[in-house]
Amino acid sequence: MLSYTETCEIPGITVAGANTDFIKFTPPADAEFLHYGYCKSIDIIPMTPDGKPTPALLTKASLESASIPQVIINAGSKISPKLPYFQTGITHGKNIAIEPAFEQSNVVQAIDYGRILGRTLASSTDCLIIGESVPGGTTTALAVLKSLGVDAHVSSSMPENPQSLKNEVVAKALARSDSKEPYDVIANAGDPMIPFVAGMLSTASKITNVILAGGTQMAAVLAIGKSLGYDQNKVALGTTSYVIDDKNANLLDIIKSISDIPVLSIDPKLNDSKFDGLRAYSKGFVKEGAGAGGSMISSILKTGISSKKLLELVDKEYTRITTSQ
Amino acid sequence: MLSYTETCEIPGITVAGANTDFIKFTPPADAEFLHYGYCKSIDIIPMTPDGKPTPALLTKASLESASIPQVIINAGSKISPKLPYFQTGITHGKNIAIEPAFEQSNVVQAIDYGRILGRTLASSTDCLIIGESVPGGTTTALAVLKSLGVDAHVSSSMPENPQSLKNEVVAKALARSDSKEPYDVIANAGDPMIPFVAGMLSTASKITNVILAGGTQMAAVLAIGKSLGYDQNKVALGTTSYVIDDKNANLLDIIKSISDIPVLSIDPKLNDSKFDGLRAYSKGFVKEGAGAGGSMISSILKTGISSKKLLELVDKEYTRITTSQ
Repeated sequence: MLSYTETCEIPGITVAGANTDFIKFTPPADAEFLHYGYCKSIDIIPMTPDGKPTPALLTKASLESASIPQVIINAGSKISPKLPYFQTGITHGKNIAIEPAFEQSNVVQAIDYGRILGRTLASSTDCLIIGESVPGGTTTALAVLKSLGVDAHVSSSMPENPQSLKNEVVAKALARSDSKEPYDVIANAGDPMIPFVAGMLSTASKITNVILAGGTQMAAVLAIGKSLGYDQNKVALGTTSYVIDDKNANLLDIIKSISDIPVLSIDPKLNDSKFDGLRAYSKGFVKEGAGAGGSMISSILKTGISSKKLLELVDKEYTRITTSQ
Repeated sequence: MLSYTETCEIPGITVAGANTDFIKFTPPADAEFLHYGYCKSIDIIPMTPDGKPTPALLTKASLESASIPQVIINAGSKISPKLPYFQTGITHGKNIAIEPAFEQSNVVQAIDYGRILGRTLASSTDCLIIGESVPGGTTTALAVLKSLGVDAHVSSSMPENPQSLKNEVVAKALARSDSKEPYDVIANAGDPMIPFVAGMLSTASKITNVILAGGTQMAAVLAIGKSLGYDQNKVALGTTSYVIDDKNANLLDIIKSISDIPVLSIDPKLNDSKFDGLRAYSKGFVKEGAGAGGSMISSILKTGISSKKLLELVDKEYTRITTSQ
C-alpha cells in the first residue's frame, strides 16, 4: 500500500528519503524493489547516505523465503510505481500542519475502494498481510489517534524521535477541529492510507485472517476501522520488537485501548547482522515499515524458518544490493 | 482485462456500443457492471437499443453463482473504470486499417507487465480465468492470426458477420508488413490485450491452470503465446457454443493449427430464456465476450450447478437490470 502525505515535507520529520525532492519516490521505489529487486523510478535502492536500507529489504527477503505473493496498491502516492499496481484514483494528503488533509469525498472514496479491494484480495488467501509505505505516516497516525481521544506516543524512523516536532504538528491539526467523528478526523488530520486500509480491514476480516503489518500507523487504522466494523477474531497486528520495545512510544497500550486483538512481535535480530546499516535498526533507526515485521512473522508461521536463517537471507539481500550498484 | 483499439471506430465493425462516442465506454462499463451491478462511467448498462445486453451479464451471474473473485486489469482502455483496477500504463491501439497499432516498446511493456501479473494472480488460485472486453477485438485478432500465417475466419458480435469489411481492414494492415516475427505482428496489426494476455499466459501456466475465456481473440493470444512459451498441459480455451457452432468461423481448426490444448464449450441455452434480448444470442448476436463462456464453464466445474439453474440466474439478472433502470 503506497501513499503520501505532504506532512512528510516538514524538515526533520522523517528519515525516509534523503531530502524533500527524494521523499516522494520512496513509496514507488519500495514497491519496485519488492517486485524487481531494484528500483526503476530512481537509480538507487532507498537507503540513508550511511547505508541504512529501506525496511522493504526485510519484507522482500521474508516474502521470498515463503513464496508469499504480493500486490501493490497505490492509494495516494505522488509518484506511480513502474509495475502493474492497483489504481484507486485517490489523491495524496496535504500537510496537516497547514491545512486539512483532504476533502470528505476523498475519505469516502478511500473507504469504499478499500472495502472493495479488501473483499477481492481476502477471497483468494487464508491470510491477508497489509503493509504500507507512507513517508511521514507516523505523524498523521498520531494526529488521528489523538483526535479520537487515544492517549498515544508514537515511534519514529529516527532514534532521536522528533516527538516535540510531531506534537507541534498534531496540535496545529487538532486546533482546526474538535470533531471525533471518524470521517471528520481523517479529512482533517489523516493520510489516504488510514481510511483505505480501514476499509480493507472491514471487509477482509469477514472473509479471512488479516495481519496489519506495522506499528503506530496500523493502530490508527484499527481505531478508524472500529467505527466501520470488523471481525476482531480474525485480526492481528504484526510488527518488529523494535517498535514494541520503543520506550518513547506506547503501542501496546494504544492497541489495548482500541481493541482486544493479539499483537505479534518479532525480534529480527539485526544486532547480529554482518552490516552496520542493518545493525542500526537495533539501535533505533527505521525500526519498521513496508510491512517488514508482519512479513517476517508470516514467513516464520508459513515455513517454520528460524529467525537465524531469515537473518542470513536478509544479510544476503543486503550484500546483493550493495555490491550490484 | 479491458483494452481498446481504434479499429472499432470503423463504422459497421462491431455491435459493442451504440455509436462511436459510446464504444470507448463499453470496457469500463462492463467492469463496473461486474463489480457493482450497475455502471458508473455511463448511466446505462451496455445494451443495444433493442435490449441485447452485454455478455458481461452472463459473466456476472456465473462468477457470483460460484463465488469466484475477480480483478479488473486496464491494459489500454481509453477510459479508466471507476473502481480499483490494475493499472499498467499501456496505451490503446491505433486503427490498424490506417496505421500500425503501436510502437514496439508498447508491445514489450505489455508482454513484460502481463508476465508479472500472470505470476502474481496465478499464485493465489488453482485456476485463473482470463476474459476480455475489447470492442473491435475480433478484427485485430484476425489480423494477428493471418499475419502469422494461420488460416482464420472469425466470429462476430453480429449475425451478419461483416467478413468482407474485416478482411478489407486486415488486408490493409498486412500490406504494411510481411514480417511473421510476433513482436512485429502485434505492433503492426494487434491490440494491447493480445500481448498482455499472452504474457500472462506464459507465466501463469507454469504455476496454475489457465482458462482463456473467449473465442477468436483468445486464439490470437494463444498464437502469440506460443512464441513466448507456456505449459500447454495447464491451458484450456473456454467459450460458448455460439462461437464454436458459428459456420462463418473456424475456431476449432484455428486452435488445432496452433496448439494441442483442450477447447471447452458451453451451450448457455439462451434460446430458452424468457427474454428476447437474451434469446438473440442464440440467433447469432453477441455470442461471447467479457469471459462469458469461460465463466459459465468455471461455475459449472466449481459448483456442479445445472445449466438450467444458471440460465435462471441469468434471466433473474436481466430482470433486475431492466426493471431497476
